Amino acid sequence: MSPETLCQMMLDAIEKELRQAVTQNHRPELNELYAIMAYHLGWEGEGAGVEARGKRIRPLLVCLTCAAAGGNWENSLPAAAAVELVHNFSLIHDDIEDNSPLRHGRPTVWKNWGIPQAINTGDAMFTLAHLTVLGLESTCTKEIAFRAAAILQETCLELTHGQYLDIAFESQKELNIEGYWLMVSGKTAALLAASTELGGLAAGSSPEEQQAYHEFGHALGLAFQVQDDYLGIWGDSEMTGKSVESDLVTGKKSLPIQYGLHQKGKFYERWTKEPVLPQDAPALARLLEEEGAKGYTQEAADLLTKDALQSLKAANPKGDAGRALKTLAMRLLQRQG
Amino acid sequence: MSPETLCQMMLDAIEKELRQAVTQNHRPELNELYAIMAYHLGWEGEGAGVEARGKRIRPLLVCLTCAAAGGNWENSLPAAAAVELVHNFSLIHDDIEDNSPLRHGRPTVWKNWGIPQAINTGDAMFTLAHLTVLGLESTCTKEIAFRAAAILQETCLELTHGQYLDIAFESQKELNIEGYWLMVSGKTAALLAASTELGGLAAGSSPEEQQAYHEFGHALGLAFQVQDDYLGIWGDSEMTGKSVESDLVTGKKSLPIQYGLHQKGKFYERWTKEPVLPQDAPALARLLEEEGAKGYTQEAADLLTKDALQSLKAANPKGDAGRALKTLAMRLLQRQG
Repeated sequence: MSPETLCQMMLDAIEKELRQAVTQNHRPELNELYAIMAYHLGWEGEGAGVEARGKRIRPLLVCLTCAAAGGNWENSLPAAAAVELVHNFSLIHDDIEDNSPLRHGRPTVWKNWGIPQAINTGDAMFTLAHLTVLGLESTCTKEIAFRAAAILQETCLELTHGQYLDIAFESQKELNIEGYWLMVSGKTAALLAASTELGGLAAGSSPEEQQAYHEFGHALGLAFQVQDDYLGIWGDSEMTGKSVESDLVTGKKSLPIQYGLHQKGKFYERWTKEPVLPQDAPALARLLEEEGAKGYTQEAADLLTKDALQSLKAANPKGDAGRALKTLAMRLLQRQG
Repeated sequence: MSPETLCQMMLDAIEKELRQAVTQNHRPELNELYAIMAYHLGWEGEGAGVEARGKRIRPLLVCLTCAAAGGNWENSLPAAAAVELVHNFSLIHDDIEDNSPLRHGRPTVWKNWGIPQAINTGDAMFTLAHLTVLGLESTCTKEIAFRAAAILQETCLELTHGQYLDIAFESQKELNIEGYWLMVSGKTAALLAASTELGGLAAGSSPEEQQAYHEFGHALGLAFQVQDDYLGIWGDSEMTGKSVESDLVTGKKSLPIQYGLHQKGKFYERWTKEPVLPQDAPALARLLEEEGAKGYTQEAADLLTKDALQSLKAANPKGDAGRALKTLAMRLLQRQG
C-alpha cells in the first residue's frame, strides 16, 4: 500500500474516533458547548472543512508508529484521538494567551464566544482527551491504558512548562538559548514525542523500542521547530520585503533571532532600537546571516534531523507503515526523502 | 479519638501530600510558575496562611470516608491531594471567567500575574491533579488507581458542564429550575461526590458502599449549595439592609431567586425593573418569602439533607471516622448534630 493510501485510511478513522470522543457525553442542554468544540475542530460553523482542521499530524504519528512497530494501528485510535484533543485544548488556550484573533483563517474560539467560554471549552477538551486515552483498556490492556494515561499527563505538564516560559519571555527582549530549548521542548517536541511513544506502547513493543520512538518524536519536534524558525526568516516569501509574516516583523522568539541577539552586534542594536517593518526584513535577515545566525540555525536543524532519523532507524520500523513514517518525517522537515 | 483531633491529623497529612504533589516537578527555570501555585494554595506570598487556604473540605472527605469505610486513610492521600488540586484549578479559571479580583481576601492569580499566566497555571494544576491520583498505584493497587483516574476525569467533565451553564446563563435573566440543578450538580456536587466515592474506593469497599458514599457526597453538595443560597438572602447579615453581600444585590443565580422569577409576580416585576441596592434587600427578601421562595428553598434543603444522611447511613460508616464524617456533614449543613 502506498504511504498516501495508508495515511488517508488512518486519517478517516482518526476523524471518526475524534467525533466519538467529543460527542460521547453530549446532552441537549450542552449543545452550545459541544458546538464550540466542533467549530474549533473544523467540523461545524462558518469555514468548516478540511482546511480548518489542521493536518492531524500527531494522531497520524500515533497510528503510523503503532503499525510500524508491528501492532494493529486501529488499537491505537483512542491514543490518537487523545493527543489530537490535547493539541487542540492547548490551541484554544494559547489563542487567548497570545491574543490571536484567527486560526486557519477563522475567528478563534475566544473571539466568537468570549474568554470565559473559551477557557472552559479548553478545559472540557482537556478532560475529554484524558477520558479518551483510557479507552486503550478495551483495544489493548488496562496495563497499557494506565501507562498511556501517565505519559499523556506528564506530557501535558511539559506543555504548561513550555507555555509558562513562552509567556514569561514575552516581556524580555532576549532569552538565553537554554531557555529557548526548554520552551520548544515543552511547546512542540513533548507532544510529538508522546505521539510516537504511545504508538509504540499500543503496539506492545519493547521498552527499548518505545524509548527509541519517543526520541524520534522528540528530535522530530525540535527539528521541525528549528526548520520552521529558519523558514520564518529565510523562506521565499519572508525575503520579499512585502511579507508581514516574517518572524522579524512579528517578533517571534525564534532561534536565529535569539542567536543574533546574543552576539550583541549590529543586529542587536537595530532590533532593540525600533520595531521592524516588512520592508526592513530582507536587510535585517542578511545582517543576521552575516553575524552567523543562518549557519547556526541550519546546522542545528541538520543535527536534529540526523538525530531524528537515527532514532527512527534504531526503532526499526517495519513494512508500509515504516516507509510512510519516514516519508511523513521527511515531509515535515521539508527534505527530499 | 475526637473528631477534631482526627481531622487535624488528616489535615496536616493532606497539606504535606499537596506540597509534594505540587513540587514534584519543580526546576529552577520554573520557579515563578510553582510560586504562583504556592501563592494560590495559600503557602506563599502576601497574606499566606491558614485563612488563605480554604477549608480543604474535599480532601478531608476523602480521608474520612476512607477510614469510615474501614481503610487506612493514609492510603487515600493521593486521591485527597488530587481532588483539592482539581478544586483549586477550577477556582483559578473561575476567577478569570467571573472577573473576580479577590479570593479569601487576597488578589486572585489573574489579578497578580495576568490572564495568560493564570490560564496556564490552572492548566498545570489540572495536570498535577491527574498525575497525583495515579499515585494510588503505590498506596493501593493499579486497578484502584485506574478507576480513580476515570472517576476524576468524569468529574472534571461535569465541572466544565456546570461552568458552561453558569457562564451561558449569565446573559439570561432567568434559567429554568432544571438548569439550576444541572448547574449546581456540576459546579458543586460532582466534586464532593467524587471525594466520598474515592475515599470508599481507596478503602477497597464494595461497589454498593462506594455508590452509597457517592450519593452521600452528591446530596451533601446539593444540600450545602441550597443552604448557602438560603443564607445568601435570609442570613443574619444579609437582612440588615447594609449588606452588599446579599445574593439579591450581587445577582447570583441562586435557587430562591430563580424560584421567585418563575412566579412572574411582584418580585419578578421589581427584579427586572432596576438593580437591587443593599438598602432594598430586606424588603425584596420579604417579598420573595411572601411568594413562597423561602419555604421552597428550606424544603429543598431539608429534603437534600435527609437524602445525604440516609445515604451516609446506607454506607454504614464505622468508628471515630464515621462519627467525624457525620459531624463534618452536619457542620457543612449548619445543623446541630
